[in-house]
Amino acid sequence: MDFPPLREELRGLQPYGAPQLDVPVQLNVNENPYGPSPAVVADIATAVAEAAGVLNRYPDREFTELRSALAAYLSRDTPHGISPAQVWAANGSNEVMLQLLQAFGGPGRCALSFAPTYSMYPEYARDTMTDWVQGRREDDFSLDLDAARALVEERRPSVVLLPSPNNPTGTALPPEAVSALCEAVGDEGVLVVDEAYGEFRRTGTPSALELLPQHRNLVVSRTMSKAFALAGARLGYLAASPEICDAIRVVRLPYHLSAVTQAVALAALRHAPELLGRVDDLRAERDATVAWLRERGHTVADSDANFALFGTFPDRHAVWQGLLARGVLIREVGPEGWLRVSIGTAEEMTAFKQALVEVMEEAGR
Amino acid sequence: MDFPPLREELRGLQPYGAPQLDVPVQLNVNENPYGPSPAVVADIATAVAEAAGVLNRYPDREFTELRSALAAYLSRDTPHGISPAQVWAANGSNEVMLQLLQAFGGPGRCALSFAPTYSMYPEYARDTMTDWVQGRREDDFSLDLDAARALVEERRPSVVLLPSPNNPTGTALPPEAVSALCEAVGDEGVLVVDEAYGEFRRTGTPSALELLPQHRNLVVSRTMSKAFALAGARLGYLAASPEICDAIRVVRLPYHLSAVTQAVALAALRHAPELLGRVDDLRAERDATVAWLRERGHTVADSDANFALFGTFPDRHAVWQGLLARGVLIREVGPEGWLRVSIGTAEEMTAFKQALVEVMEEAGR
Repeated sequence: MDFPPLREELRGLQPYGAPQLDVPVQLNVNENPYGPSPAVVADIATAVAEAAGVLNRYPDREFTELRSALAAYLSRDTPHGISPAQVWAANGSNEVMLQLLQAFGGPGRCALSFAPTYSMYPEYARDTMTDWVQGRREDDFSLDLDAARALVEERRPSVVLLPSPNNPTGTALPPEAVSALCEAVGDEGVLVVDEAYGEFRRTGTPSALELLPQHRNLVVSRTMSKAFALAGARLGYLAASPEICDAIRVVRLPYHLSAVTQAVALAALRHAPELLGRVDDLRAERDATVAWLRERGHTVADSDANFALFGTFPDRHAVWQGLLARGVLIREVGPEGWLRVSIGTAEEMTAFKQALVEVMEEAGR
Repeated sequence: MDFPPLREELRGLQPYGAPQLDVPVQLNVNENPYGPSPAVVADIATAVAEAAGVLNRYPDREFTELRSALAAYLSRDTPHGISPAQVWAANGSNEVMLQLLQAFGGPGRCALSFAPTYSMYPEYARDTMTDWVQGRREDDFSLDLDAARALVEERRPSVVLLPSPNNPTGTALPPEAVSALCEAVGDEGVLVVDEAYGEFRRTGTPSALELLPQHRNLVVSRTMSKAFALAGARLGYLAASPEICDAIRVVRLPYHLSAVTQAVALAALRHAPELLGRVDDLRAERDATVAWLRERGHTVADSDANFALFGTFPDRHAVWQGLLARGVLIREVGPEGWLRVSIGTAEEMTAFKQALVEVMEEAGR
């Protein structure tokens, strides 16, 4: 046997993750370009100093105060409100998803999503020995609801993963689709609407949080990485029925959320209005970027997120490389021929546009 | 089907964790009683404030600086030194162990330990669909090496979990046993010496870190929760061959260690001398507590940890309850009749002794 004795199916695999390159304009991993303001930094430092005095003790396993703050925050997005018992959190959406698959997936069960979509989903399934079923999206990246329902009925997934807006396409899911698929899944499974980029949705696009009272198998996940500009702090969370939150408790590692993480997240939540103001700026920048790309003759998927998928290029790698040579890092991801650019500051987007114009001119088009 | 659709084998299970009660003297979860000093708190706050300025960016996925600092710290415990490529870390030893089981355990494989031992081990196995094999320790909680080797040869585990010192008994493992079992396991598995309490070992007890050059299948895990008084910060780590660290990368969730966690751990490591001075105080207090319990006629397991297992009581629950009524919370854990007390400050141990004397007198002995 080869050493080390890694599981057969994991051998030769590369760890997940985009290249971490030191480049002036980083528009590759959908980070929020705005660092926390001095007021947020100061509040975080004070909160951590307070928590640090008792770091010799284990953290509150139930992160009671943070659950309440997250519930209050989410309640802004639904007339029905969200209670603390409906909230769960972990170290990034990654861990939230892993816990959902540990509780509701596993051997003999399957998880389902529709490609192109977030490339970590099959890894959560793999890590929990859950079968992975992948349907297809339409050419415009929307969902054919009849086909989706038929696939659910055929495969009976115990977990359905539906990002809205979808990554890497930016496509939001209409509430009718969420409801219809929740019904198709039934009590045999949970349907997770991954709203990691939910705060960036366009005016008029509702959050799936509004549907929670109608579907006890609905889970809506969020993250503080994007709208709260807190990717470095690793805080993902979800809203669902209290029964689902209780079930996740059985598989969570005890004390999985550090006292420091709880303190940082609480401090950031106190600054929600300021941080969401930045989100509005980014939404405007996103719409302007999409419009500009279309004016330049590119095809761009409608985006409710803080990124845009555009194309299509006969040699997308050459375009990616040309941008990188000009100090602009974007992401080579999604269907063949497309590229994804995260929405940065106005200055960063100017640099991106200028670099793209140069690259396209060089290519003689 | 019942709702929610939790996996069959998880239904009705309770989440792991000791009761979190608000009691004056908390000697139940082996926490370090000494909170960080004002100097440590200030350094942590400064480090986090610095990290907070760029929290909108994802953290260093490879936690390069922290790996180097942990390697330097571990190198104190072995003449062979430890390199950064030999180090891995995660959110608490819990996550380190889960990752080890994800990489090297799983369906069709088994993990092995010897009871009585840490009660989370079977949960890591359960969460990764790994079969769980449990040998027995001798009456004095030591390992019968021939029997242990025979069990390894019979069951061919891909992961062996050996805490040293053992929790809840405090028993350290002699290096000969570690070496012999590493050889018995061979290239088909990894042997994990869990040194969560390693810094509390008595003078003359070596760390298994010294054995790393001889056994490429050896993993030595540590935590910052105990010696570094950082249970609230959740930082577990391990030293092993670079091939093993590389293998874990395949199953780790990307960006699993937050920038804040990395900053807090680095700050605490800068204060290692001060924090390890407190460890010496606790080792002395531990030896005094063991001696006192023995003078009072109790049986006490030899302890290389920051706790002592003592007994035996015909009704241990009554003793536990009597102590709790006097404001002293210890842990009802381990083999029937035994109780475990964590080593606290001199004042806390005085309170514990006084309460125990009262409880025993009340019981008429």
